Amino acid sequence: MYNASHDAKPSQNMSAIDPAYSAELKQIKLIVERELMPLEPLLLTQQWEALNHALADARKKVKHHNWWSTHYPTAMESYSMYLTALLAEVIGQSPLGHYVFGWQAPDIGNIELLHDHASDPIKTQWLNPLKQGDIRSCFAMTEPDNAGSNPTLLSTTAVSDGDDWLINGHKWFTTSADGAAFTIVMAVTHPEADKHQRASMILVPMDNPGLKFKRNIAVMGHQGKGYFSHAELSFENCRVPKSNTIGQAGHGFKLAQQRLGPGRIHHCMRWIGIAQRCFDIMCRHVKNRAVTPTQTLADQALIQSKVADCFAAIKAARTLVLNTAQTVDKAGFDAARFEISMIKFHTAQMLQKVMDTTLQCLGALGMTDDSIVAYFYREERAARIYDGPDEVHMLSLGKQILKTY
Amino acid sequence: MYNASHDAKPSQNMSAIDPAYSAELKQIKLIVERELMPLEPLLLTQQWEALNHALADARKKVKHHNWWSTHYPTAMESYSMYLTALLAEVIGQSPLGHYVFGWQAPDIGNIELLHDHASDPIKTQWLNPLKQGDIRSCFAMTEPDNAGSNPTLLSTTAVSDGDDWLINGHKWFTTSADGAAFTIVMAVTHPEADKHQRASMILVPMDNPGLKFKRNIAVMGHQGKGYFSHAELSFENCRVPKSNTIGQAGHGFKLAQQRLGPGRIHHCMRWIGIAQRCFDIMCRHVKNRAVTPTQTLADQALIQSKVADCFAAIKAARTLVLNTAQTVDKAGFDAARFEISMIKFHTAQMLQKVMDTTLQCLGALGMTDDSIVAYFYREERAARIYDGPDEVHMLSLGKQILKTY
Amino acid sequence: MYNASHDAKPSQNMSAIDPAYSAELKQIKLIVERELMPLEPLLLTQQWEALNHALADARKKVKHHNWWSTHYPTAMESYSMYLTALLAEVIGQSPLGHYVFGWQAPDIGNIELLHDHASDPIKTQWLNPLKQGDIRSCFAMTEPDNAGSNPTLLSTTAVSDGDDWLINGHKWFTTSADGAAFTIVMAVTHPEADKHQRASMILVPMDNPGLKFKRNIAVMGHQGKGYFSHAELSFENCRVPKSNTIGQAGHGFKLAQQRLGPGRIHHCMRWIGIAQRCFDIMCRHVKNRAVTPTQTLADQALIQSKVADCFAAIKAARTLVLNTAQTVDKAGFDAARFEISMIKFHTAQMLQKVMDTTLQCLGALGMTDDSIVAYFYREERAARIYDGPDEVHMLSLGKQILKTY
Amino acid sequence: MYNASHDAKPSQNMSAIDPAYSAELKQIKLIVERELMPLEPLLLTQQWEALNHALADARKKVKHHNWWSTHYPTAMESYSMYLTALLAEVIGQSPLGHYVFGWQAPDIGNIELLHDHASDPIKTQWLNPLKQGDIRSCFAMTEPDNAGSNPTLLSTTAVSDGDDWLINGHKWFTTSADGAAFTIVMAVTHPEADKHQRASMILVPMDNPGLKFKRNIAVMGHQGKGYFSHAELSFENCRVPKSNTIGQAGHGFKLAQQRLGPGRIHHCMRWIGIAQRCFDIMCRHVKNRAVTPTQTLADQALIQSKVADCFAAIKAARTLVLNTAQTVDKAGFDAARFEISMIKFHTAQMLQKVMDTTLQCLGALGMTDDSIVAYFYREERAARIYDGPDEVHMLSLGKQILKTY
Repeated sequence: MYNASHDAKPSQNMSAIDPAYSAELKQIKLIVERELMPLEPLLLTQQWEALNHALADARKKVKHHNWWSTHYPTAMESYSMYLTALLAEVIGQSPLGHYVFGWQAPDIGNIELLHDHASDPIKTQWLNPLKQGDIRSCFAMTEPDNAGSNPTLLSTTAVSDGDDWLINGHKWFTTSADGAAFTIVMAVTHPEADKHQRASMILVPMDNPGLKFKRNIAVMGHQGKGYFSHAELSFENCRVPKSNTIGQAGHGFKLAQQRLGPGRIHHCMRWIGIAQRCFDIMCRHVKNRAVTPTQTLADQALIQSKVADCFAAIKAARTLVLNTAQTVDKAGFDAARFEISMIKFHTAQMLQKVMDTTLQCLGALGMTDDSIVAYFYREERAARIYDGPDEVHMLSLGKQILKTY
Repeated sequence: MYNASHDAKPSQNMSAIDPAYSAELKQIKLIVERELMPLEPLLLTQQWEALNHALADARKKVKHHNWWSTHYPTAMESYSMYLTALLAEVIGQSPLGHYVFGWQAPDIGNIELLHDHASDPIKTQWLNPLKQGDIRSCFAMTEPDNAGSNPTLLSTTAVSDGDDWLINGHKWFTTSADGAAFTIVMAVTHPEADKHQRASMILVPMDNPGLKFKRNIAVMGHQGKGYFSHAELSFENCRVPKSNTIGQAGHGFKLAQQRLGPGRIHHCMRWIGIAQRCFDIMCRHVKNRAVTPTQTLADQALIQSKVADCFAAIKAARTLVLNTAQTVDKAGFDAARFEISMIKFHTAQMLQKVMDTTLQCLGALGMTDDSIVAYFYREERAARIYDGPDEVHMLSLGKQILKTY
Repeated sequence: MYNASHDAKPSQNMSAIDPAYSAELKQIKLIVERELMPLEPLLLTQQWEALNHALADARKKVKHHNWWSTHYPTAMESYSMYLTALLAEVIGQSPLGHYVFGWQAPDIGNIELLHDHASDPIKTQWLNPLKQGDIRSCFAMTEPDNAGSNPTLLSTTAVSDGDDWLINGHKWFTTSADGAAFTIVMAVTHPEADKHQRASMILVPMDNPGLKFKRNIAVMGHQGKGYFSHAELSFENCRVPKSNTIGQAGHGFKLAQQRLGPGRIHHCMRWIGIAQRCFDIMCRHVKNRAVTPTQTLADQALIQSKVADCFAAIKAARTLVLNTAQTVDKAGFDAARFEISMIKFHTAQMLQKVMDTTLQCLGALGMTDDSIVAYFYREERAARIYDGPDEVHMLSLGKQILKTY
Repeated sequence: MYNASHDAKPSQNMSAIDPAYSAELKQIKLIVERELMPLEPLLLTQQWEALNHALADARKKVKHHNWWSTHYPTAMESYSMYLTALLAEVIGQSPLGHYVFGWQAPDIGNIELLHDHASDPIKTQWLNPLKQGDIRSCFAMTEPDNAGSNPTLLSTTAVSDGDDWLINGHKWFTTSADGAAFTIVMAVTHPEADKHQRASMILVPMDNPGLKFKRNIAVMGHQGKGYFSHAELSFENCRVPKSNTIGQAGHGFKLAQQRLGPGRIHHCMRWIGIAQRCFDIMCRHVKNRAVTPTQTLADQALIQSKVADCFAAIKAARTLVLNTAQTVDKAGFDAARFEISMIKFHTAQMLQKVMDTTLQCLGALGMTDDSIVAYFYREERAARIYDGPDEVHMLSLGKQILKTY
């Protein structure tokens, strides 16, 4: 079977990959295919308890192989963006992959954040168990009454009260808040400051009495549960010590930007993994689907041209994202600023096109949960919205480019 | 508020509508908005019992107003395609509308079919209560192992055994089978005949012991229930008297084609109703969504151009479909053959574009079930697949056109 | 041969056309096909003298049949927008049609303008021979240094000097200035007034010594000549009597808007005529083009689906434009304001898609001047630019729609 | 000024470029910008004599710098596809570049062909002066009556007559035949053989009395002249010695495939050069074009998003093509077969999108020959047609991919 992503030569052209790493990726791919994909029906049918049990087992196996990546920040030195991007693609082919390998958002972002900016007591109390996967966390930034695409628009406030902050506000789309041990909340602490210096990041344990868990928001038909959920939270005179501030007070916006950088490349590679999985499903389906006694869908010109179109779209996005990862490795995130904005919308649009084409080629089957495609189609529609809608990225990139002329 | 569909002048240009009918449409629109839309959360949260109760009440009110349309076939003489198309648009704005007004597929198609082709005993036993909405029905055509786009490919057989048929086969996507009183099944009775004359339509009571209800298929995350479901059925030596044949044996394919004709125009107008509802939701949202202290999304050029683009797309599709309905009224279905194929894919593609744009403009909210948009986005993706995928209609239309050159 | 525009039923649905008019349109269509299309190679090979000679002959024939339409303003009462739209479509199939039938821009717009707003002496001296086609005219609005999409941005000034205006400024894209007898120039006469009341329209004979004809601008490879050209003009202390003002001074912008109204619908129908002609050429070509000993391009699925796609696009645009014409006829231009903005960009985009698809289906032949397609492809690219680029219309329409919510 | 192609980092990531080569590319880019672009108006206004004179001078300068690349085949060993691709991009920014640097099709393809397959006498008589640019050549394959996309459909025959071939047939789109010293013609010599082994390549001097030059075909409005032209040729009992056969008789199809390989990558890079040039023109124009007293087009959101969209499209195509070039360098043309098919249509579609967007952003100016954009828009429309239309490549690629599943 031809696999556009992994058997193809491009990645090897782009930079020499250590054969040991390459072998490891293949092994990981097998784990994803053989051990995680069979668990997906539990996710699709909301069998949370059985799912959690199975995922815990899978995590053990991953740790046993030493693939558990809560050692990530340390590994940053040795693992390049390029190499981790390749990993993100492989484990991203299943919606369970990132969780099982200890790479799941929002924990991974919080780990990097706390690793770089938290005090020692916070590291001891929260970071260490988080890295081990013993607890989960969340990140409360988006607010229902403010456009998420403009993080300088925040209504949540943290008012100084002696050694404490008193936090009040309303958050939603707080991914994985259900069952988390703590959240990091973005709140305005310096309302008079410049708009990029108003907010701070503050760690709040989820059992703080001033933090109300209101609901898991139903997204595309499901509220989800535990890790697989997005919550609405309310902060009502929520009191926490100022020592819970992450980094400096007023630096919230800056830290949020830093937090998103590596995430964008990994998101893109996860999407490419999903696109590739859909593509494989499409190709296999059309080869097997008889339309006449002697022909399958694969013999039809309209199908062939869709396959070619998707193939080119996946390859173009993949080459572009890996190239951006290499730019980051060689010249840092600042040098890749344009490209990172670009790959966000370019890859998300490619993903939607490939998912949609696959669903169409599957016909009625594509609408059902008998394949994973319908799940990707509805859940990953968010790719063009979360982390800044396409339009915001396009305007921002367009402006930056035009400044250089 | 400007409403692209109903306040605008086009429909009046296209043909004079009786003012009484026009007033009736406005009243029906109000019912849909005030009484049905508030029930939609019950559908979105799968509260089937409460939903059924509420829908039963709504049906009573509809009957009281004499809008219940199980009298449809009789009314065919007085109600033109054009006028019923306008009705389909109005009640189609809610996923509950067709059911409450007694226009729901697959019953409406079965009513027309039985009205024109069933024997008197069948009419007495099955058609009459179906017209009253006292029972429900389903239509078992699609098979999991054969491309639905080619209805001449059928594996289900009905073998003659004295005065009975013995039916064996496997069906799926049998909409609303859960709780139906009977199904009409397409089965091959004349395997040696020309491919368009092999199949027959046979009525089978759902409690026939040879008919196994296997499951409601999970579609886009939900199995649904009752009317709102799609089932997988198995016929295992299912014995029914030959008198249950609808029309002549061997005429199944022909009857199926007849059954689809009016349905396509109504589907298109229902889709236009949905597109219009999404468009209204989008426009209201962007007007209310602040992005800066002084501006809303509605002030942004990218939003404005999307609004204009969707407006033009909806208007073009609507004008085209109504025009096709008028062709049918004046010259019959045969004269409109090209156009009916054309509006099927043209309207379905317009719908997907408008739903997708609306979701994007709603941002994270669009992903949630706090608005109806996510429901339409995932459920109505089927518009481009059911009743023949776009591609099949395009090829067929293209061939027909090219024959005339 | 099936002809999507003229044999199809839609137009008859949309409103009853007088059979006599219908017969006349058929006759005119024959004239266009048999007498004008054979002259097109003269245009494509820039044989201006032979072309002009042949066009003059064709005009005589048209006048003889009493189809010459310089009697247009009078006819406005009897000829509806709807009926003239149908005519514009038929004569628009050839780039020579409008000129031969006395409907050519910019003369037709100037005729309407002078008819409604000029003084009697001007009517006698300029309007009458213009209506007869004895002279030609032009309209000098666009300026090289100002965005044409914003007609309130004008650098050309007319300064009062006793009973005269002294005009200074720089114009380009003054269509058909080469050989015209006069131009109507837009110039700022009231620089201090509100931006919509600054400009006036002033008639300037082309032989005025202050009016310099600088060049015919090369457009898409050709400078053109005579009627088929776009000029750059310079006004250098150009003195004309104030009695040459058309309508009131300061009303230039308002008159320009009025001038564009009917033109937009006619442009759209002309484009639909062009799209239909390309479509016919495409269908005939693919039917005749062998790709294997037994098959032609018309047997290929990708071609069939392109044909279906273009067919739907043409029909949708045509139905929409005719519907808009009917709105105008019944409720006036103001009631059709949204729709006129909408059809401008919708039809122009449809046209480009159909021209491009046709060219692609013709292959290398499509690149040559052995067919008319390459001419349309390059010249009519302007459809999305002239009279306001798509983007300007989309923003304007989007804003207007959003105001109603 | 930011230049998406050359200042950006990607190329450096993709493989280390020798700094000397990099410096050379910059120098060549300057030559193209300063010496060739100023000559383009001669091309746009068909001043053939002055143009030829100027190009001859420019070639001298190029040879003086030792950049003349008729030494190409020898250099194949040292110049990789990757490096020459970068060169093709730079010189492709002007339609005069390839000619001046001695890289022009069809000569370059003929040089490679003769270098690898011609007899010594032919090399001496024809190849050597061709490499020096002292003569020109052409390649007669496409026939007006056969689809160019299927090179196995050929009507031209070469019949054995003793030691000679007698060639009869009709060719067109023979690029640069006007003024060429010889052509290489594809003719059927073995009509009974397998369809890929029927044709041979035969060298025919243009002054052979059996070879009639019929006309330069008018393409997009112009017949062109000399190098810048496409001819129609007729072979009428054209007698040439069999020793003029290139390679083995019957190997014509195979040689034609070999001839196209490297050409596709160079075409793609030339298109990327053109896209980049258009992009630069667009960005500069919108920065300078005032739309209000305080704003330019560059301040408008619709423009910014178009800029971002084109930027991403160019970058994606560029990265993909360079990656393919690297695959060729490392693993040969066979390993890159899929990718070469893919980049052909992907890059051509990107080019059309960027040219079209640029033209639209330039407004009326974009329609004129005051900028080069209108030239590219019309001439390079052929990118999606020549060397196999997009559709042919997509079907072929789709089939190949599906075979691997």
